[in-house]
Amino acid sequence: MKIDDTIEFTRERLIRFSDCDPAGIVFYPQYFVMLNGLVEDWVDDSLGIGYRHLLIERRIGLPTVRLEADFRAVSHMGDRVVLVLAVERLGGRSITLKLRCTGGAGDTRMEMRQVLVTTSLVTHHAIDIPPDLRAAITRRSGIVQ
Amino acid sequence: MKIDDTIEFTRERLIRFSDCDPAGIVFYPQYFVMLNGLVEDWVDDSLGIGYRHLLIERRIGLPTVRLEADFRAVSHMGDRVVLVLAVERLGGRSITLKLRCTGGAGDTRMEMRQVLVTTSLVTHHAIDIPPDLRAAITRRSGIVQ
Amino acid sequence: MKIDDTIEFTRERLIRFSDCDPAGIVFYPQYFVMLNGLVEDWVDDSLGIGYRHLLIERRIGLPTVRLEADFRAVSHMGDRVVLVLAVERLGGRSITLKLRCTGGAGDTRMEMRQVLVTTSLVTHHAIDIPPDLRAAITRRSGIVQ
Amino acid sequence: MKIDDTIEFTRERLIRFSDCDPAGIVFYPQYFVMLNGLVEDWVDDSLGIGYRHLLIERRIGLPTVRLEADFRAVSHMGDRVVLVLAVERLGGRSITLKLRCTGGAGDTRMEMRQVLVTTSLVTHHAIDIPPDLRAAITRRSGIVQ
Repeated sequence: MKIDDTIEFTRERLIRFSDCDPAGIVFYPQYFVMLNGLVEDWVDDSLGIGYRHLLIERRIGLPTVRLEADFRAVSHMGDRVVLVLAVERLGGRSITLKLRCTGGAGDTRMEMRQVLVTTSLVTHHAIDIPPDLRAAITRRSGIVQ
Repeated sequence: MKIDDTIEFTRERLIRFSDCDPAGIVFYPQYFVMLNGLVEDWVDDSLGIGYRHLLIERRIGLPTVRLEADFRAVSHMGDRVVLVLAVERLGGRSITLKLRCTGGAGDTRMEMRQVLVTTSLVTHHAIDIPPDLRAAITRRSGIVQ
Repeated sequence: MKIDDTIEFTRERLIRFSDCDPAGIVFYPQYFVMLNGLVEDWVDDSLGIGYRHLLIERRIGLPTVRLEADFRAVSHMGDRVVLVLAVERLGGRSITLKLRCTGGAGDTRMEMRQVLVTTSLVTHHAIDIPPDLRAAITRRSGIVQ
Repeated sequence: MKIDDTIEFTRERLIRFSDCDPAGIVFYPQYFVMLNGLVEDWVDDSLGIGYRHLLIERRIGLPTVRLEADFRAVSHMGDRVVLVLAVERLGGRSITLKLRCTGGAGDTRMEMRQVLVTTSLVTHHAIDIPPDLRAAITRRSGIVQ
């Protein structure tokens, strides 16, 4: 299995007043809130699975089990940033994503590697990635199996 | 001075996972965060003043001094709501807005009246609404003087 | 039924970096988050009902249906404020609270009247205030029936 | 220089309704908000420097440049967790912290390594750790130089 991790899903996002701290820049936990929104949009718009459907109707969650993040430059209120997602690895029960936030000029503000697992929201235990979710990720990420 | 409060500024907004609480619905303070974003967009896109410019370069804030809110129906994760803003009253140092969040079918989820004042971010005291901001609001809100 | 609305439940709270906005003061929706925490503490510590027990085991929610808030003075990062709750009215399905945030010198920063209703978290419809919750509020609020 | 990283600064924290997501558990970015509050308390109460004083009067920030986090178990609303901080490394311009959130039984819910740098909030550039901050960290962390 080989993933083409140059295939990227992107969304523009305005840095809002409510994203920023008394230093006038993005409060760092807010990057994770923004990138969580990007994962939602990816599941909705790129994978076509429906994030709400997955969580509410099918009771399948996508909690984070590990992340590594580097903060390279600050973002200010009013900046139009681009949020970027690529799949790095698809395991049996886990999905490793590479995510970043870039400024308008393509400069990296923050980047991270995030490992999500598929879990039952009833038991909170890991479960195999459902076949339709796996197929959608494979199809959209240029994975050659 | 007469305001045409049927002139509305609107934006669509997806209700996200991060907006919702353990009851699976929008956590009520989050409506204020969403509507604060709408005020930003109104200052940016409708008034053409630039919210960041106003706050950062000109050191003029728009804090809330009073609000009255009614919550009429719940919003769920994944809902596409419409946020609506109209000017109700323009005072010497205050702007009264009527804001609401409606569901896709036009049903009101939450509505509020909010009084903002223009303040100096240096002294945190109220100041007169700057002429360019007043002119833009007057022009965009169908105010006949 | 007569309520002694001078009986107050209070908690001290430090204004944190994460509560504040680029103007260096509390971002106003954050007052509602803080006061929601006060209601939790009141249900836990004063009423002895258990907020988690109420929501999770009994599936009873306390959503807000109306609030009126006045913001009288700003709070800065590092301020030790006092959050205050009193019961103003106890209806069949609703509880009206008076809440405020005061500075260390007793000066009011923000105050609000908030109407909560008891709802089923299964149907999201209003239900009668459960007898044990009503009895606890009556006992703690000096209500003479 | 040798650090005794078994010297820990701890604070108890109630998991609140507002910390939790529609899955009924702590929304993961909220751990970073909680641990940011722990760093504030550490600077205030253990180091005796004053977080607000550092940021507002001295215009020195402590932004995060890197973090690695592992999420090992979920936390639910109503849990009383313990937040723990230890210093792992003290550089010229950076402080490496080990932080974790444990349940009442000492079980690890989430842990992370976080690298902070001291910056000028005027230029947003890194600066040397101020001597008084360095001395306080050294004194409180059992660093033998």
